[in-house]
Amino acid sequence: MTEDGHAAPADDDVAAIPLRDDEGDLNPAFVEMLEAAVEAADRDRVRALAGDLHEADVGDLLDALAPDLRTPLVELLGDDFDFTALTEVDETVRVQIIEELPTATVVEGLRDMESDDAVYLLEDLDEADKAEILAGLPFPDRIALQRSLDYPEETAGRRMQTDFIAVPPFWTVGQTIDYLRDHDDLPEEFYEIFVIDPGFRLLGSVPLNRLLRARRTTRIDGVMAETRHLVRATDDQEEVARQFERYNLVSAAVTDDADRLVGVITVDDIVDVIQAEAEEDIRAMAGVGDEEISDSVVYTVKTRSVWLLVNLATAFLASSVIGLFEASIEKLVALAVLMPIVASMGGNAGTQTMTVAVRALATRELDANNAGRLALREIAVGLVNGVGFAILVGGIAGLWFRDPTLGMVFGAAMIVNMLAAAAAGIAIPLTLDRFDVDPAVASGVFVTTVTDCVGFLAFLGLATWILVS
Amino acid sequence: MTEDGHAAPADDDVAAIPLRDDEGDLNPAFVEMLEAAVEAADRDRVRALAGDLHEADVGDLLDALAPDLRTPLVELLGDDFDFTALTEVDETVRVQIIEELPTATVVEGLRDMESDDAVYLLEDLDEADKAEILAGLPFPDRIALQRSLDYPEETAGRRMQTDFIAVPPFWTVGQTIDYLRDHDDLPEEFYEIFVIDPGFRLLGSVPLNRLLRARRTTRIDGVMAETRHLVRATDDQEEVARQFERYNLVSAAVTDDADRLVGVITVDDIVDVIQAEAEEDIRAMAGVGDEEISDSVVYTVKTRSVWLLVNLATAFLASSVIGLFEASIEKLVALAVLMPIVASMGGNAGTQTMTVAVRALATRELDANNAGRLALREIAVGLVNGVGFAILVGGIAGLWFRDPTLGMVFGAAMIVNMLAAAAAGIAIPLTLDRFDVDPAVASGVFVTTVTDCVGFLAFLGLATWILVS
Repeated sequence: MTEDGHAAPADDDVAAIPLRDDEGDLNPAFVEMLEAAVEAADRDRVRALAGDLHEADVGDLLDALAPDLRTPLVELLGDDFDFTALTEVDETVRVQIIEELPTATVVEGLRDMESDDAVYLLEDLDEADKAEILAGLPFPDRIALQRSLDYPEETAGRRMQTDFIAVPPFWTVGQTIDYLRDHDDLPEEFYEIFVIDPGFRLLGSVPLNRLLRARRTTRIDGVMAETRHLVRATDDQEEVARQFERYNLVSAAVTDDADRLVGVITVDDIVDVIQAEAEEDIRAMAGVGDEEISDSVVYTVKTRSVWLLVNLATAFLASSVIGLFEASIEKLVALAVLMPIVASMGGNAGTQTMTVAVRALATRELDANNAGRLALREIAVGLVNGVGFAILVGGIAGLWFRDPTLGMVFGAAMIVNMLAAAAAGIAIPLTLDRFDVDPAVASGVFVTTVTDCVGFLAFLGLATWILVS
Repeated sequence: MTEDGHAAPADDDVAAIPLRDDEGDLNPAFVEMLEAAVEAADRDRVRALAGDLHEADVGDLLDALAPDLRTPLVELLGDDFDFTALTEVDETVRVQIIEELPTATVVEGLRDMESDDAVYLLEDLDEADKAEILAGLPFPDRIALQRSLDYPEETAGRRMQTDFIAVPPFWTVGQTIDYLRDHDDLPEEFYEIFVIDPGFRLLGSVPLNRLLRARRTTRIDGVMAETRHLVRATDDQEEVARQFERYNLVSAAVTDDADRLVGVITVDDIVDVIQAEAEEDIRAMAGVGDEEISDSVVYTVKTRSVWLLVNLATAFLASSVIGLFEASIEKLVALAVLMPIVASMGGNAGTQTMTVAVRALATRELDANNAGRLALREIAVGLVNGVGFAILVGGIAGLWFRDPTLGMVFGAAMIVNMLAAAAAGIAIPLTLDRFDVDPAVASGVFVTTVTDCVGFLAFLGLATWILVS
């Protein structure tokens, strides 16, 4: 294996630096060592360092490597590189590596993969690259992948594995076990065996532990569990994830519109979906979309500036409210000093209510059954917090500017804005959800617009009425 | 079963209203029907409606029911109530029901549960209730639960099931399968069989599909996979979840400090952890802690007001910066109108950067290997967005107040604050993480304090220097 003349490195040299530190993070010293080996095109050393690692670890290394060394690492690893590692990296990194590699290498890599992982690699490529790679695959593989890719993005059809084990109901347990013993081309991992009729329609499934506990002479339909939780290939992956979570599933059969079994979804893919969906909400609420830390400056500016632009419009709206009271501010400049506090407190209280509502909607904990109860609680919380903080800030402001009336006006505005925050924080996500707009994306702008405008209007309006005129 | 004299309801009556609508949400009409039956103490109807449901559905119903009807529902269901349903409800609801039920009923319910689920129910109770329930359990069950409860909260020891199947390495596949066929007291679900030495030390494991595919005469150590990903009972559940996610595990052996096998963790418990950890970050960033939608007003006010109080302090800090420039504002009131825009844009840009950093830290994507790269990208994004928005807002402000110099000052302050936002957004989470403070909890306050103060200082300072004096 020392084809390029380098001596194989001493084992203790490689073993000296562990891949991960005690926290489970990649060791920077290991990454540097690998980078040096890739830069030197030292094939043996690269293989000694990364050839035997789990594909997830190789994926993490690819993410951590300097961008121009990623494809060279894959090429140096050659046959030791398991393309499944590319399912573990950021989308940007995945697309970069697949586009940089020769098509023949990618085709070769895809042939060894499970169908769901292969679809995961292909789906983000542009149509031309996808077609070129598919054309290189043998017929049955191509058809299987094509069928998955024909389902819309983020559906069960895209996440399912098309390799599975299905037996007729009249087989015995013994026959089934013998079948498993005698066949080598089975999926790498499986957790249940499906039972189908001659038309490939799903009748039920047998978890492996039930198969193992049954007598050899028992008929399969005697140990089969009827499918309670049916997944359709066209179901949204988020809906599928909710089913897995709700019913503690490990794998689930996927059927087409004619009830025919077409694939199986396993929990490892669903774990990624659950993680991604929760991420999506955090990101949507902060206006950073589907951005990844490996994205370019240009892409990042493009996605983030949209959100900042929306925020700018609402900020101008709020400042036009202030503009209405220029005369009052000129007379009593303390108003300008205090007004951001009212807006900020309202914004924070509104965000609290909104976050609870958005997440409860996402996890389906909040629906028509308890919306009224939650709204009442939020208004009550807004009132209690409003009164409490009104007394506190009113007192401070009164002392600071030696003007008790100013303090009272300030406190009154605080109560008004906390109530507005509670009402907006619950009503806006519920309304958006009703109109099928993702509440995580849009609620934040509306809620802070309400709390900014109401905050400035209540404080400056009351002040103008009571203190200035 | 009609012990209280009620006639059993007609089947079509019960079947007429489905439990869930097309979206998968609980049907309000079904909930109302159940509430009516519980209120009427109509045991037969309650059992007809909810007796055969999956425990997850019963859990969702308990959450949706009016609080005073929850314990009565459990009591009316009697033997038909599977206590596992209580693992699916909010903590508040769980504690309420367990405290309201007679201890004997809870003890009876716990006896039928898997050990990990039983621990989940017990751990949130106060010590006295916990001790009373444990005292009612038979000796072996009590010891197993006690041992799990002795591990710290949120560790693998708390989440593990203490029931598992372990065989010696010299057994054959056939012997193992016969053992499984002949024993009835096996765990309800299992995905692998563990291999141990006489000292109960873990040697490896055999996934069920490998056991099924092997010949009966093969020795277990011939099909055994060595354990690559070891989970210690004292490991934090978040660390365990990361391992499951990284290596696509379905179950994992848990060992004690002496390498002895003490339990098994399965992916269904880990799915809940992953969900909870992502939730935690969203909630921490909005300052709503571990609050649930079923919490009381008093509890909610208590947790949220802490965050609002911290925010109030920083708001006063920012407004004291404004206070420094009262004289300038008095002379040029347009400053008061425009200043919230600078602060708001900085706050939003800072939150974007911070959210990306906080999540990347949480998922371990961000570490020493790429912190420098991300910081550079963020500064570049801040600069590009800063200059772009400076031109835009500078132009608008210049036209609005017919004062080009004011527009230029406004634009310059925007650039300064966008850069400050980028720097604070990346530096603050990294610093907090370095000092082992959860960046999700604390970053937000610090970042917006920086962007508020820098925003007001830059704008009002530049304006005072160039426009006013």
